[in-house]
Amino acid sequence: MQDPAQHYFKCTDRERAAFEAGIKLGTIYHQYVGIPINLTNLESLENAIRQSVLVQPFVKEAQVRIDRDIVNKRQGVYKYITLSGDMMDVSLTIKYREEEVKARLRYVPDMDYPLMYLEGD
Amino acid sequence: MQDPAQHYFKCTDRERAAFEAGIKLGTIYHQYVGIPINLTNLESLENAIRQSVLVQPFVKEAQVRIDRDIVNKRQGVYKYITLSGDMMDVSLTIKYREEEVKARLRYVPDMDYPLMYLEGD
Amino acid sequence: MQDPAQHYFKCTDRERAAFEAGIKLGTIYHQYVGIPINLTNLESLENAIRQSVLVQPFVKEAQVRIDRDIVNKRQGVYKYITLSGDMMDVSLTIKYREEEVKARLRYVPDMDYPLMYLEGD
Amino acid sequence: MQDPAQHYFKCTDRERAAFEAGIKLGTIYHQYVGIPINLTNLESLENAIRQSVLVQPFVKEAQVRIDRDIVNKRQGVYKYITLSGDMMDVSLTIKYREEEVKARLRYVPDMDYPLMYLEGD
Repeated sequence: MQDPAQHYFKCTDRERAAFEAGIKLGTIYHQYVGIPINLTNLESLENAIRQSVLVQPFVKEAQVRIDRDIVNKRQGVYKYITLSGDMMDVSLTIKYREEEVKARLRYVPDMDYPLMYLEGD
Repeated sequence: MQDPAQHYFKCTDRERAAFEAGIKLGTIYHQYVGIPINLTNLESLENAIRQSVLVQPFVKEAQVRIDRDIVNKRQGVYKYITLSGDMMDVSLTIKYREEEVKARLRYVPDMDYPLMYLEGD
Repeated sequence: MQDPAQHYFKCTDRERAAFEAGIKLGTIYHQYVGIPINLTNLESLENAIRQSVLVQPFVKEAQVRIDRDIVNKRQGVYKYITLSGDMMDVSLTIKYREEEVKARLRYVPDMDYPLMYLEGD
Repeated sequence: MQDPAQHYFKCTDRERAAFEAGIKLGTIYHQYVGIPINLTNLESLENAIRQSVLVQPFVKEAQVRIDRDIVNKRQGVYKYITLSGDMMDVSLTIKYREEEVKARLRYVPDMDYPLMYLEGD
């Protein structure tokens, strides 16, 4: 994809790819956290999140998984809960010109934190 | 559905149904506005919104439609836009005990406003 | 406030007030859940939520409180967490024509659930 | 700030700073778009957004401005609108170890798009 915004950026192509990866993960976390879920609608939600990130610029591949075990354990009086960051596992491949980065959002037990990070190739 | 929260409410069953309808429409608008869209992911998003509202208490039926014409017209340099309230048409049937209400979110041209309202039966 | 949408509604004024109350609480929950917080920014966030709900139609009064104890206990490796529904306590007074309702969002321990409900006067 | 997640990352410190900048701008856009606004609550909202991004890791400075002219022009029948991306102007300074980047979210007229980009120093 030709990039009409290229002249606004003061960085390398790889830094740009990293920046775009951060945007997409920040988007996913803060757009979807709070959605009502139980085991019946996880597949449609995973699919919608994946399809949506694929329309954003420079996203080459995406995988989205919501943890069934957590959803199953936490559902309460009304048989549903709301999506939180620690249930999500998202893998993205971002390609900007010749540079490709892999980014991930997943709950990291040793930090007790839903971490967004740049994985090796 | 038996309602464990009934004793918290000081209102008629029909007022309760109206209140629940308002919650669901407020949820949909403020949860999903901002999602990246183009013509390729509208169906998956409509489906996810519908499946998600159906897991919330007292929702009997739901229809969700995103306006293809608006999406088609507005997509810009990167071939996508973000979801806004004026593109959404949502119809819900809420049932609380014996009372049923129909609620709607749709863009109303004479007010130039995405209106949430209670329709007749 | 004169209401340009009145003719769209098929309900009593009190049902309308209940509906509007539901919209506002659904809005607050699904708009703000996910915001990064620690003890330093709670006051500015409470203030912004309150000021924002007051610009919506038919809102007469609003109080917003985020639970300091929960925030204090949960902050992790990076000294912040994200706002969740169980930390919020919101009280609203909605007035539609002559009808006034009081609505509340707060965590209810016996249900282990952030409940939205209509309180008595 | 010492970073407990450092070993998860396969990238330079500058790429990391770019990634963190992207996360923060994606967060701001997708968390706050949709909030009800008019001229009375812009200052409290700008303040809340700024205070909130400052609690996230590696954010050194932040400025947030919502365009008064757009808000003034668009407010409709109920004297309020909802926040959209084209009204926001956000400047961030991200510092990761010795590397500092400046990031921006602002509406760019020649692209008709709310662009997130990395500015020069």
